[in-house]
Amino acid sequence: MKAAVFVEPGKIEVQERPQPTIQQPTDAIIRVIRACVCGSDLWWYRGLKQREVNSTVGHEAIGIVEQVGAAVQNVQPGDFVIVPFTHGCGHCAACRAGFEGNCVNEEPGLNPGYQAQYLRFTNAHWALVKIPGQPEDYDEEQLNSLLTLSDVMATGYHAAMSAQVQAGDTVAIVGDGAVGLCAVIAAKLQGAQRIITLSHHTKRAQLAQKFGATDIVSMRDEAAIQAVLKLTDQAGVDAVLECVGTEQAVSMAVKIARAGAVIGRVGLPQNSQMNTNDLFWGNIGLRGGIASVTKYDRQRLLAAVLKREINPGQVFTHKFTLDQIQAAYEAMDQRQAIKSLVIVNQ
Amino acid sequence: MKAAVFVEPGKIEVQERPQPTIQQPTDAIIRVIRACVCGSDLWWYRGLKQREVNSTVGHEAIGIVEQVGAAVQNVQPGDFVIVPFTHGCGHCAACRAGFEGNCVNEEPGLNPGYQAQYLRFTNAHWALVKIPGQPEDYDEEQLNSLLTLSDVMATGYHAAMSAQVQAGDTVAIVGDGAVGLCAVIAAKLQGAQRIITLSHHTKRAQLAQKFGATDIVSMRDEAAIQAVLKLTDQAGVDAVLECVGTEQAVSMAVKIARAGAVIGRVGLPQNSQMNTNDLFWGNIGLRGGIASVTKYDRQRLLAAVLKREINPGQVFTHKFTLDQIQAAYEAMDQRQAIKSLVIVNQ
Repeated sequence: MKAAVFVEPGKIEVQERPQPTIQQPTDAIIRVIRACVCGSDLWWYRGLKQREVNSTVGHEAIGIVEQVGAAVQNVQPGDFVIVPFTHGCGHCAACRAGFEGNCVNEEPGLNPGYQAQYLRFTNAHWALVKIPGQPEDYDEEQLNSLLTLSDVMATGYHAAMSAQVQAGDTVAIVGDGAVGLCAVIAAKLQGAQRIITLSHHTKRAQLAQKFGATDIVSMRDEAAIQAVLKLTDQAGVDAVLECVGTEQAVSMAVKIARAGAVIGRVGLPQNSQMNTNDLFWGNIGLRGGIASVTKYDRQRLLAAVLKREINPGQVFTHKFTLDQIQAAYEAMDQRQAIKSLVIVNQ
Repeated sequence: MKAAVFVEPGKIEVQERPQPTIQQPTDAIIRVIRACVCGSDLWWYRGLKQREVNSTVGHEAIGIVEQVGAAVQNVQPGDFVIVPFTHGCGHCAACRAGFEGNCVNEEPGLNPGYQAQYLRFTNAHWALVKIPGQPEDYDEEQLNSLLTLSDVMATGYHAAMSAQVQAGDTVAIVGDGAVGLCAVIAAKLQGAQRIITLSHHTKRAQLAQKFGATDIVSMRDEAAIQAVLKLTDQAGVDAVLECVGTEQAVSMAVKIARAGAVIGRVGLPQNSQMNTNDLFWGNIGLRGGIASVTKYDRQRLLAAVLKREINPGQVFTHKFTLDQIQAAYEAMDQRQAIKSLVIVNQ
């Protein structure tokens, strides 16, 4: 089969690899229909994070179940599924608490390799999310929205859940990447009354507005902080969705939060050495981490996509085939694409 | 009048001072009945924090309203009141959000000086909490419990509120000082099923058990972490109440929390430079700050003391008169007293 492979920083190649096989009774083999490139992939693409040479890549997909292990009852071959980047077992303490992104029964060192024709999915007995019908029952927009439920939309939603966004809230979104844009959708879904997106990219700001942002703050740094405070009569916002991951982004989040607000942080943290005293003196909370993809999809997000209540698939501004994987990464790396879609099988 | 005054690190003196007067329509003058010494007072007593020489001290009291400003309607002269260390105005964004400890209308640079015969209380029109009846209607134990509602019990409760403790939870308390012991009471009040107190002082551990702790972990550092994990089948606890304030205490809290748990931090933070990546990778939240004393007293704590559902006054292990203020501080400093009570007027 064809699989995207990391050759060196800046270089991804499609290579021929053996088709994966069932190794545990809880495994499933998935034939990938659509995959995509994540902002977090850029860390190793840019050489800022180590990655094993010749490893397969990608962790977001929708596809068809090809084969299941003996313990997998919830899906069967032929089912159309969301393939989460998380692999909750469904029964450990973390999964039971609703935080499957911290499942203690995940296979250590697992390299998912979703940018490929086939993938092996672990803990399929719980974590796979069945989509009604077959791919041909959906149009382009809905297929793309279903694909976002494997990571980016669930991650934006985790920001809103972590920040405990409630109906009527004023919410600020730090980060205008695909996760930040999905966080706008999530804030709106939670009933936020006012959604302030910090963005200095016209196209991203426009999409944020389409998704529900009521205000765009296009300044940077201190000027952005002052602008948000001005919009809230100096009170600060009820919740901040931090979708970048840098220390600077978290620090900005603290400065625009009102007393008692919670920052929902889903940007993968880089060097987050910070003085947390400001959090204390502002009674500001910091929560977040890896999203609970399966839980969120089942609870709410899949239904919202099926009803077309949300259309997160619009974050895919550029479309590629698996053979064009290098270009898919380049478009993200150069910020031409908000998010690159990768068509694998039709 | 007599007032306790900070002379130099290690030295507190009772001096004659002018009786305070109404300066704002929202002020009240309180005749202090009982006051006490707070763990946070030890920071400047020990010279670890700067404090103005000759400043009056103390921020916890119960007393009788002596005089009120024109705007104060909720209490009148003669009323018996809890005198919170916080001074919420009741109507700013922070107060409306329920975080009066961050009231933006607090008088800047206010030095409360509650360890004195009289004190001036600002924002009395909202923040003072009326106690039914008069001091002589209560016995020693209940008077002491009422006194804890000016700070320490409300602060322990804020730890539980910040950590979002729910019925059935397994909760760990880091810190066996008066705040940590009150946090045990708060966790129990919230319906926690299992309350693990980290304490290596027999008397404090005994009081924790009296207050509702189900398990005592007496080891230190890594051994304590392993003991808590063992008690929870390696899962970690549902909530951690951090009642110390050091970086080490917060770091320990992170290591004993299960995925998705929230650390409720009420220990005044010292040098809290920390790497927050561990929070992210564990989906662990960090919340907390200054307690909402008036709100908590009115919502729940005053009624609980009046019904004798809780008896936080037992944290006062040593009793002094105002004239003995130096000894009251020494007893806390040398960890002889869990908390020093100061009888001012009968």
